[in-house]
Amino acid sequence: MNFHYPNGKPYIPKAKSEGFKKDKVKNSTYSNRGMTLEEDLNETNSYYLERQIAIIHKKPTPVQIVQVDYPKRSAAVIKEAYFKQASTTDYNGVYKGKYLDFEAKETKFTSSFPLKNFHPHQIQHMSGVLRQDGICFVILRFSTLEEVYLLQAHHLLEFWKRMEEGGRKSVTKGEIEKLGHRIPLGLQPRIDYIKVINYLYNLS
Amino acid sequence: MNFHYPNGKPYIPKAKSEGFKKDKVKNSTYSNRGMTLEEDLNETNSYYLERQIAIIHKKPTPVQIVQVDYPKRSAAVIKEAYFKQASTTDYNGVYKGKYLDFEAKETKFTSSFPLKNFHPHQIQHMSGVLRQDGICFVILRFSTLEEVYLLQAHHLLEFWKRMEEGGRKSVTKGEIEKLGHRIPLGLQPRIDYIKVINYLYNLS
Repeated sequence: MNFHYPNGKPYIPKAKSEGFKKDKVKNSTYSNRGMTLEEDLNETNSYYLERQIAIIHKKPTPVQIVQVDYPKRSAAVIKEAYFKQASTTDYNGVYKGKYLDFEAKETKFTSSFPLKNFHPHQIQHMSGVLRQDGICFVILRFSTLEEVYLLQAHHLLEFWKRMEEGGRKSVTKGEIEKLGHRIPLGLQPRIDYIKVINYLYNLS
Repeated sequence: MNFHYPNGKPYIPKAKSEGFKKDKVKNSTYSNRGMTLEEDLNETNSYYLERQIAIIHKKPTPVQIVQVDYPKRSAAVIKEAYFKQASTTDYNGVYKGKYLDFEAKETKFTSSFPLKNFHPHQIQHMSGVLRQDGICFVILRFSTLEEVYLLQAHHLLEFWKRMEEGGRKSVTKGEIEKLGHRIPLGLQPRIDYIKVINYLYNLS
């Protein structure tokens, strides 16, 4: 029997391949990091894509391939590879001619968002995107509270700078509430961040 | 001893991992496909990035990961994975606020460019990018002739349509010369496609 979501899409059980991620982060402070939020955003981006609202894709996980086998009569099998550090954010694409670029992260903490969720490379990338007049932001999820915020990259860069100058290593919840924009969780799409972008950049 | 390129960048010998691509395409009609052109474009994009001209990255090769080992005290090793079909073009990024998106392909043929170099998914993606007012094109290299052209996506889509309606399965060299824009090969950057974009979209 096949199950379907309310939107008619078939329910596809998680592929074996997705299991490793869960294992990987089990020992991490943010045990759910990058899982639910990623699924919600993928679903949201599919929604935008199908309705021709925006074209936003998650970049594939960068992998350094070392050894590949070519068995006869079947597909090439990668036998040895390693995860590489991403040099950009995970998501980008186009909306009404504009370049959109963002990173999505979640935390189990409830009173602040640790900046170590971001890599210096990503911060540098965001800074470059802003210089090119791209629209750049982060989507932050407080998983315990089930709250999701959009925070524009120029704010994040300020907090990063504060940390580099010896200040706190996180952004307080209060700061995110004040400077960011809460995204109400929906069913279709689940995380309607384009609505916030319309508001912030007068694009609707 | 370390070698450096004229621009001061250290020369890094090709990683073992890059070997597989060469092996992979050896039996193909276009034995050099995706190699030299990719290197030239990566170098060009680094040039743009360092000088804050544009931020364009090649997307990582999409891989379906099936099995990962976590040896003690060392990095996770991917032990089984497969190449996936890309659903978008390979390159995208931002230039002066605009979304740029392109695919790069080469052929050994000298009188036409076979359309089978593109996948239906990519064609669909390009069509969507144009609907979102993104800047979308292909970079075509005739490797035997050492000639590189930029052809805007709307032209490619016309040729694709012609094929679907029973017409020829390639774009003639003459058509590319007429509708495309030859990119002279340089040293720094090697394939200065932004110059053509400036001209076509009045962005300089």
